[in-house]
Amino acid sequence: MIILKLGGSVVTDKSRPFSFREEVVRRLAEEIRDSDVEGLLIVHGGGAFGHPVASEYGIEDGLNEPGQLMGVAKTRAAMAELNQRIVEVLVECGIPAVSIQTSAVFECRDKRIYSGRIEPVRDFLGIGAVPVLYGDVVVDRSLGVCILSGDQIVAYLAERLKPEQVILATDVDGVLDKNGRVIERVNDANAPSAVEASFVPAGDVTGGMKGKIEELLELAKRGVSSVIVNALVEDRLKNALLGKKTIGTLFEVKR
Amino acid sequence: MIILKLGGSVVTDKSRPFSFREEVVRRLAEEIRDSDVEGLLIVHGGGAFGHPVASEYGIEDGLNEPGQLMGVAKTRAAMAELNQRIVEVLVECGIPAVSIQTSAVFECRDKRIYSGRIEPVRDFLGIGAVPVLYGDVVVDRSLGVCILSGDQIVAYLAERLKPEQVILATDVDGVLDKNGRVIERVNDANAPSAVEASFVPAGDVTGGMKGKIEELLELAKRGVSSVIVNALVEDRLKNALLGKKTIGTLFEVKR
Repeated sequence: MIILKLGGSVVTDKSRPFSFREEVVRRLAEEIRDSDVEGLLIVHGGGAFGHPVASEYGIEDGLNEPGQLMGVAKTRAAMAELNQRIVEVLVECGIPAVSIQTSAVFECRDKRIYSGRIEPVRDFLGIGAVPVLYGDVVVDRSLGVCILSGDQIVAYLAERLKPEQVILATDVDGVLDKNGRVIERVNDANAPSAVEASFVPAGDVTGGMKGKIEELLELAKRGVSSVIVNALVEDRLKNALLGKKTIGTLFEVKR
Repeated sequence: MIILKLGGSVVTDKSRPFSFREEVVRRLAEEIRDSDVEGLLIVHGGGAFGHPVASEYGIEDGLNEPGQLMGVAKTRAAMAELNQRIVEVLVECGIPAVSIQTSAVFECRDKRIYSGRIEPVRDFLGIGAVPVLYGDVVVDRSLGVCILSGDQIVAYLAERLKPEQVILATDVDGVLDKNGRVIERVNDANAPSAVEASFVPAGDVTGGMKGKIEELLELAKRGVSSVIVNALVEDRLKNALLGKKTIGTLFEVKR
């Protein structure tokens, strides 16, 4: 089984609010279909849909005044719309994709998942469907609400479902070193410099590449390897799905 | 707290596949907003979105062959679209509506809910939001999948959340007697004749009025009263929300 994260910067154009990259998503859906991988779970980010609304209402710092409640509703609706569009394209391409709503499955405490119900995920995988989850606003027992990133969802599910591989489809070639070259493999030895080299893009309320690296290092410790690829370049996702060598950064599991 | 069921025949035109009654939903959203009820949960039916796709693929009898899997995905996507449109109108009217995905919360066995996780419903009610659930395809431990009707969700949630009132917003004036007159009150004494008088409309895969009456009688036994009103007629929903007398059928709780 493979867990595929489709980054918010892949499925949307983060520079333009509510811009859905339908052509990119359709190509990726075709790469997924053509790879014919058995057992697939998809998680996508918020990108140009979730982040602008969440930022406008200050949702990332929790629920502090009643006016933010409409911000919660609007962020939820925006994310549901993005999810709906992605699922529709997947279904049109013949992939039996079923959305699984993050906020119905996860609750947080201080921005970390403390309760998750993965039965629906297991069940839909069990009947051969492709569950599609997404970064979203969820209830937070300490803060009222919080933004739960797709990356944290991936880490949580990977730990419990033990996929053969986690694939992070992003808009960069991988983790870059200070000279702009792709670091092919990240392990305990070079992890600090990899984290150092990374950066958080402006307007990303969920932590950017730094957050990703930390989640993936943690995941490798727990026995799940992962790879970051640039899904804006044709066939890289397909090659990663097929287990073929492609440009990207691999987070190795220590044997 | 009030649980409001918006019937599939109210939010859509069942005679035309994928027809969303936006103007009706907008008027109802305004009636809801104007009633200013504290603590509201909405469940809506599938109508012209869920039923045609589910019927085409025979989903109502479970998952019997692989070809139906795309039917599951398509029915799920159709219902998510209807839900999305309803939530958007509610949010536009200033109601902090948040969708809660049925299939992420409920699992069935032989078409009846056997496992439900109502924490997200309670939590979103707790922060002052208006949860919006809907009839949908869910995993069924016996049949693979099944259609879980909005009516069954209402009954399940009503039993656990103990609302002051359940309101069923439909396209009929209430339960009619054999002369076509509205039966104002249904109780144990006249229940058999009320069930007898009811009918199942063609193309409804979830049981129609007969199913509703049975769920509501069961609910009354458990201490929750409910009322059926015609939401296509202006102000009847608002009056019901305000607890005012209006044309409709009341399912009484025996005291």
